[in-house]
Amino acid sequence: MEKDFYGDLRLGILGGGQLGRMLIQEAINLNISVSVLDPDMDAPCKKLCDKFETGSLTDFETVYKFGKQVDMLTIEIEKVNVDALEKLEEEGVIVYPQARVIRLIQDKGLQKQFFKQNDIPTASFQLISSKENLKDAHIPLPFIQKLRKDGYDGRGVRKIVEESDFTTAFDAPSIIEEWIPFEKEIAVIVARNDDGNVAVFPLVEMEFNPHANLVEFLISPSILPFEVQQQAEQLAIKIAEDLQIVGLLAVEMFLTPEGKILVNELAPRPHNSGHHTIEGNFTSQFAQHLRAIFNLPLGDTAARSNAVMINLLGEKNYEGLAVYEGLEEVLTEHGVYIHLYGKKFTKPFRKMGHVTVVHEDRDKAIEIAKNIQQTIKVIA
Amino acid sequence: MEKDFYGDLRLGILGGGQLGRMLIQEAINLNISVSVLDPDMDAPCKKLCDKFETGSLTDFETVYKFGKQVDMLTIEIEKVNVDALEKLEEEGVIVYPQARVIRLIQDKGLQKQFFKQNDIPTASFQLISSKENLKDAHIPLPFIQKLRKDGYDGRGVRKIVEESDFTTAFDAPSIIEEWIPFEKEIAVIVARNDDGNVAVFPLVEMEFNPHANLVEFLISPSILPFEVQQQAEQLAIKIAEDLQIVGLLAVEMFLTPEGKILVNELAPRPHNSGHHTIEGNFTSQFAQHLRAIFNLPLGDTAARSNAVMINLLGEKNYEGLAVYEGLEEVLTEHGVYIHLYGKKFTKPFRKMGHVTVVHEDRDKAIEIAKNIQQTIKVIA
Repeated sequence: MEKDFYGDLRLGILGGGQLGRMLIQEAINLNISVSVLDPDMDAPCKKLCDKFETGSLTDFETVYKFGKQVDMLTIEIEKVNVDALEKLEEEGVIVYPQARVIRLIQDKGLQKQFFKQNDIPTASFQLISSKENLKDAHIPLPFIQKLRKDGYDGRGVRKIVEESDFTTAFDAPSIIEEWIPFEKEIAVIVARNDDGNVAVFPLVEMEFNPHANLVEFLISPSILPFEVQQQAEQLAIKIAEDLQIVGLLAVEMFLTPEGKILVNELAPRPHNSGHHTIEGNFTSQFAQHLRAIFNLPLGDTAARSNAVMINLLGEKNYEGLAVYEGLEEVLTEHGVYIHLYGKKFTKPFRKMGHVTVVHEDRDKAIEIAKNIQQTIKVIA
Repeated sequence: MEKDFYGDLRLGILGGGQLGRMLIQEAINLNISVSVLDPDMDAPCKKLCDKFETGSLTDFETVYKFGKQVDMLTIEIEKVNVDALEKLEEEGVIVYPQARVIRLIQDKGLQKQFFKQNDIPTASFQLISSKENLKDAHIPLPFIQKLRKDGYDGRGVRKIVEESDFTTAFDAPSIIEEWIPFEKEIAVIVARNDDGNVAVFPLVEMEFNPHANLVEFLISPSILPFEVQQQAEQLAIKIAEDLQIVGLLAVEMFLTPEGKILVNELAPRPHNSGHHTIEGNFTSQFAQHLRAIFNLPLGDTAARSNAVMINLLGEKNYEGLAVYEGLEEVLTEHGVYIHLYGKKFTKPFRKMGHVTVVHEDRDKAIEIAKNIQQTIKVIA
């Protein structure tokens, strides 16, 4: 493709949320002209792009027409109309990640089958088409039921503990998956450009909010044993190469108490588990995604310092115009970076922003982050 | 003032160039709604703000009307209509830096008088009203003539070597200034918020492009003797306090071969000598400016690593639609950050972007920066 893209090449982003917003903050540095499609007329990207279009990401015509106006399309959310993307690819629009990769990852069932076919370690699973099939499951109880499509941020996932839970289970195509009593959730982000070059960010460790089932706390880089780090990073590289993806790929994994790594889920785009890279690594995940899709040399992924990232989630019991309590207090701490996402309205557990803490002392970074978590409240 | 500004408070920026653009990249993180006024309908900020208005920055009515639509005004260029700003201040719009500070700094004659009145070391000078006065000058030849108003980026400055140069001298209100055979040009950026808290960035050393008279090469932090660093930083703090400025203040200084510091010029805004802070320091100058004008706690100014910044200037003999040669090659280097300014057209010495190199080894950072300077060319 034409390398001299600066200024002239029009990049389209499907989705105008916080991931698109942070991608635009980076795209500004390369004079990339950005168009955004999002169903929400108040989406976080609205005021920051050359062209903002309101429309459904899952509607064939809307996505197709939007794609015809740009030279390259990328995504910040998987739930998009892939048929339109395939047609656009046929007609010469560059779509990165590729439509076939998005189609595969959209469906958790296909994802699991892909893992199996490619010898990628993952929890045992079974595909079912409705809750009727639960009684014939060969996965022992308790297990996890996940909707094959459209689950995100913890939605579409349910733990089935005993037979009496079958009645309240999802009645749709799902996977049921062995319950993994994991030690830790870990994640790796890898990038692959069109030349096939691959670069992997250092492994990170996550802590989830058990109520919201969202990443709430992330530590980079991991201090797990070197073999674990290496194995996780190699696994991410293998998956990127098996998929032949162009762009970023986030790989979420479980580390079992026995030290075994199991791949949980993929996301073919910038990801919550990479926000700390903006200040914590030499190259941010957003800059890396742009380098990958424009087939530029991939950037140095090394950590610049310890970084701890916390999500700012809408406080429970508050819904309405967002108010950020405690931000000013937090700004007195050194090495603290606030990123608000420009969302007008808060609701319980909505991702309203994130804060990254960098510090030469890992424990100190964690301590500051924990204090911040107590200090900042997103209310209405 | 109301501290809970996130999202609701409208910030107006006078000027929509690269400084405004990088300020917006930071303002995004705090959900600040930004309006921009600039005479150029293709200004670098155009697509990145809530509201972009095309109009003259020096016209009273235009600036006044623009200011009436916002809660707070700031500048990214000094050449603005200060009468309008004073009226806006009277009518309750917050203007930071204050109109009186901008008025003082707009006029290099008033600046020099301010230095004198406040015991701030500076080169000897004399105010003249036209070139007629040159023959009566009591500053010995050679000397520097600077237009009192509207000079920038090296324009409006001339060296007068001998009497025959008097005929080609500027025929307008000017200062003439003792010629300083300086050892180094150095600069300090300081921030002061409304509470009167002050924070100073570490001293930087500059190298100028002698043809364009522009900062072309900057090294942070300085490794000059501690006394020099301390003296320069204390001087910057003193000036910020003497001025009672709210916002950023860039202080450009000469270091003489005898180790004496002389203040050259002030800029009451983000400045070219602070671009390296984006990646090189814990807080960037742009984030710091926002913290200062919104009266938030000032951020940690410490260096995160050695940083070398080079300006990307339009190549000599090229004028037209900008093309960036060598960018891809430069992206293979580690620790290199490219910032393009979104200017459609290049012309000789126009500031088209900058590149920052961070490296744990100072000499290596300088070496990489020098290579980059040979590699990237902005042509048409």
